[in-house]
Amino acid sequence: MDDRLFTFVGGASGSWRVASSVTLAGAPPPALQALEVVSGGLRERPPGATWCLRGIRSNERYVTRTEKESLLAVQAPLGRPQATHAALIPIRKTAAWWALAQDERRRIFEENARHIEIGLRYLPAVARRLYHCRDLGADEPYDFLTWFEFAATDAPAFDTLLAALRASEEWAYVDAEVELRLVRSDA
Amino acid sequence: MDDRLFTFVGGASGSWRVASSVTLAGAPPPALQALEVVSGGLRERPPGATWCLRGIRSNERYVTRTEKESLLAVQAPLGRPQATHAALIPIRKTAAWWALAQDERRRIFEENARHIEIGLRYLPAVARRLYHCRDLGADEPYDFLTWFEFAATDAPAFDTLLAALRASEEWAYVDAEVELRLVRSDA
Repeated sequence: MDDRLFTFVGGASGSWRVASSVTLAGAPPPALQALEVVSGGLRERPPGATWCLRGIRSNERYVTRTEKESLLAVQAPLGRPQATHAALIPIRKTAAWWALAQDERRRIFEENARHIEIGLRYLPAVARRLYHCRDLGADEPYDFLTWFEFAATDAPAFDTLLAALRASEEWAYVDAEVELRLVRSDA
Repeated sequence: MDDRLFTFVGGASGSWRVASSVTLAGAPPPALQALEVVSGGLRERPPGATWCLRGIRSNERYVTRTEKESLLAVQAPLGRPQATHAALIPIRKTAAWWALAQDERRRIFEENARHIEIGLRYLPAVARRLYHCRDLGADEPYDFLTWFEFAATDAPAFDTLLAALRASEEWAYVDAEVELRLVRSDA
């Protein structure tokens, strides 16, 4: 079995210390001191955990072959020693987004919001991974968990990346968003 | 909560009688006499059930706005009184399919396989609904559950529809497929 499913466990302890938590839209999470990323989908909340989010790695929904090759050529893996900073940004999109046809979502995602083009500017400094939640079940609180890892010195570049995405047409369809900034507990 | 998640429960009794079961690729299901479609995702297998498949309704992955309008204009709802015949066809696609970029899958799906165009020819006679399984978890046996309802007199047309889809380039990526033909138990 491949490792497609992961659980993000927030609570008092974990490999990542929560440096800040900002709720941009929707309900705020509970107060969290730390976060652990666990392989698999936990059915029971572990002792001490106050927030559990599941996400699954899935196929790409918008990226063309040409864009995929461009991304593969420059993207960085997770777990680089210098990448002591991370961000977990769970996002939910509106019903209006999900009711759009594929070509309409693609147009907003790339032709208008230039989501891929913006992301490419910050590679390989910012490693990223997308986890899907929407189709894990009928009552998931978010549609996506977005995860980013970078060195402390690249934190300003990451801030710029986030600002560019949030200013895009695509973000008009985001109705729940939390930004957890994290630092490796051993850093 | 909307009704996105459903469980298909096979066993000794249910609203649909199993008229035939054919395994086209992959592992065969257990012998089934009947099928029930239940709203929600069952955690426990009901007493007497020998086969449980979960599926979730999701957003469209390939259909453009123009194609969506064409489909909406002619498609039929589920549950029509005359639609006493049904088919449940669970399908799994290969890892090669899922590794393709979005434009490559779209090209195979419609430009080459003409999946939407073929389906349109049999509307409104054949009502259909697609349930997704792949992102429900990491160990689902199928990627999709496809469901069709039609009148007894439209069964030959449905056979023709199936044959056309199975002859397409898209079906080269199908590595598990079971065809259950069903008749309403009260019919």
